[in-house]
Amino acid sequence: NALTIGLIPADGIGREVIPAASRVIEAVLPSSVKLNFVHLDAGFELFQKTGVALPEATVKACLDGSLDGAMFGSVSSPSHKVEGYSSPIVALRKKLDLYANVRPVVTPVGASGKAIDMVIVRENTECLYIKSEKIEKNADGTRTAYATRKISETASRRIATMAFNIALKRGQVRQNSASLPLVTVVHKSNVLSITDGLFREVCLDVFKNGAEGAFAAKTRMDEQLVDSMVYRLFREPHKFDVCVAPNLYGDIISDGAAALVGSLGVVASANVGDTFCIGEPVHGSAPDIAGKGIANPIASIRSASMLLSHLGWNAEAARMDAAVDKVLVEHADLLTPDLGGKGTTDGVTAAVLKYL
Amino acid sequence: NALTIGLIPADGIGREVIPAASRVIEAVLPSSVKLNFVHLDAGFELFQKTGVALPEATVKACLDGSLDGAMFGSVSSPSHKVEGYSSPIVALRKKLDLYANVRPVVTPVGASGKAIDMVIVRENTECLYIKSEKIEKNADGTRTAYATRKISETASRRIATMAFNIALKRGQVRQNSASLPLVTVVHKSNVLSITDGLFREVCLDVFKNGAEGAFAAKTRMDEQLVDSMVYRLFREPHKFDVCVAPNLYGDIISDGAAALVGSLGVVASANVGDTFCIGEPVHGSAPDIAGKGIANPIASIRSASMLLSHLGWNAEAARMDAAVDKVLVEHADLLTPDLGGKGTTDGVTAAVLKYL
Ligand SMILES: CC(C)[C@H](C(=O)O)[C@@H](O)C(=O)O
Ligand SMILES: CC(C)[C@H](C(=O)O)[C@@H](O)C(=O)O
Repeated sequence: NALTIGLIPADGIGREVIPAASRVIEAVLPSSVKLNFVHLDAGFELFQKTGVALPEATVKACLDGSLDGAMFGSVSSPSHKVEGYSSPIVALRKKLDLYANVRPVVTPVGASGKAIDMVIVRENTECLYIKSEKIEKNADGTRTAYATRKISETASRRIATMAFNIALKRGQVRQNSASLPLVTVVHKSNVLSITDGLFREVCLDVFKNGAEGAFAAKTRMDEQLVDSMVYRLFREPHKFDVCVAPNLYGDIISDGAAALVGSLGVVASANVGDTFCIGEPVHGSAPDIAGKGIANPIASIRSASMLLSHLGWNAEAARMDAAVDKVLVEHADLLTPDLGGKGTTDGVTAAVLKYL
Repeated sequence: NALTIGLIPADGIGREVIPAASRVIEAVLPSSVKLNFVHLDAGFELFQKTGVALPEATVKACLDGSLDGAMFGSVSSPSHKVEGYSSPIVALRKKLDLYANVRPVVTPVGASGKAIDMVIVRENTECLYIKSEKIEKNADGTRTAYATRKISETASRRIATMAFNIALKRGQVRQNSASLPLVTVVHKSNVLSITDGLFREVCLDVFKNGAEGAFAAKTRMDEQLVDSMVYRLFREPHKFDVCVAPNLYGDIISDGAAALVGSLGVVASANVGDTFCIGEPVHGSAPDIAGKGIANPIASIRSASMLLSHLGWNAEAARMDAAVDKVLVEHADLLTPDLGGKGTTDGVTAAVLKYL
């Protein structure tokens, strides 16, 4: 009975919140489980030191079967082009074929107000993230740059299938709900009729014909243009359930949705493939607060819970989530500054540990 | 002393709000002005009837100097690919080289709460909107689609210049403000280092060296990754001033921002080129409420005010804006359902006319 988890804190507050999450993992698992953490390198800071942002050893550890799963922290983003540098998390997602980025956006159980309980299922391997770009010099001496956006039937089908499967599962849990779970397909096919048209067509086909009719029978589907989606997200967030989106739209709407639940510091994600899973907080490396001990560990703890649940430790994951909710709802005094509190990473982590 | 304005209501509620706006234009101009409205066709409904979404006559009227400016309503978007159909507003923007889409997002003067007063300056001719798409069949029988995203130095430079010029003007008006106007550059250069890297580089250069140093001396610049931008928009909307963005990001953040000021039904825009201007409400054709007489005319009235101001009728535009603000702040009872009221298009228009 053993569990080996890779830890890739990467940059900035990643180095504060990943240790917090690993402490909670350690505490929640039965003591009979032989738990191993394997520390792995990646990041922009590493690149600045060594010229390599994502060492081969890190990729290999995730691929060679020695790990059960991993946690990734956050990467710093140079906003200008740095020769030779490319985002290690984008590369990891692609190299490990972690084709889905699953991002639940939820208000804690017990919080007042209308509950938000949605999951954004973001395609994680293509769209503009294939980074196929070029720049040309025009006759008049100015430059024009081009990027290619790729939407494949295969990637669209597997992400849609994952979204509808998640919806099915949510339907099973919500026994007392009158309405079927809803999958909202996000696209911009009024402008991108071929690429987003394909994405939309495949989602519709998965809905109609997938899982031998189970999706059509047990879920509902609707669609939103991405601009309208962001608008509605803020007008009626409680109406959304599962949303499936190509990579960039998924990136944008999940950050937007985070504003609805208090802070990016509480929003978790799992990068999921057919054989591996990496938990990852949705927030960035937050250079402005890095090193101060005030980063919110909740997004990472929730990401760790997603990872454990993916690995079959469902009861343990549920205990982690419940402990987090209790701290969020009952201990406003302990919360970190992103949530308006004066608390610390350690303080929040200690409180979660206490309620496990 | 004559003014000739083209009216292109297009689809759905466009046919209700454009007449409302034209009534207000008529009322606000001095009676000495010989005002002509020229009715022009476009739209998806027109396409369904005639096979043409944007008649040559409409384009020609805007190009041949017979019009001083125009108003566009809204287009219905088939979300699936309809052979031969392409969005007439996207085409108009490109054909007339209306390279900027200027979208003010403001709370009315006199409203309670922290005021939002921002302008989104959206590039209007390129990015993924060049609609260069293709689809290929793979060896395994599945399809893969590609779209090209274009970012040119020339288009980036002129949109950045327009954004900083708008900021300069805002600075002149705000005499009593301690801080210089701020231009936020929105991009995603941590992933799209070449295309968005070029956009960012050009914006920075315009800031540093544009207008013979006036931008650097009299405005400030900062930047936001588009995902983070949407997040912050909802956390601290009052902090934004002028935002400049490539086409698609501009589309998304302006719809998002609309949620912060009550409704898409109040957000105006102007499509601006070097020689022509088209006022256009940001909302869509709203098929669900079309024909019911309850569409909010305020976005169109405000767009008409932007058009008049562009044509030099500044005092008249200001009177229109003030009348709209008065109705918004003092006549909640009259407002349309999108703003939570039970009012009608005609009722709101009549109230605006009364306060002119
Ligand atoms: C850091 C960046 C490349 C990344 C992305 O855009 O995917 C981040 O924003 C995220 O959401 O995980
Ligand atoms: C109708 C659609 C093509 C258009 C766009 O995406 O530009 C609309 O959303 C807008 O914002 O004007």
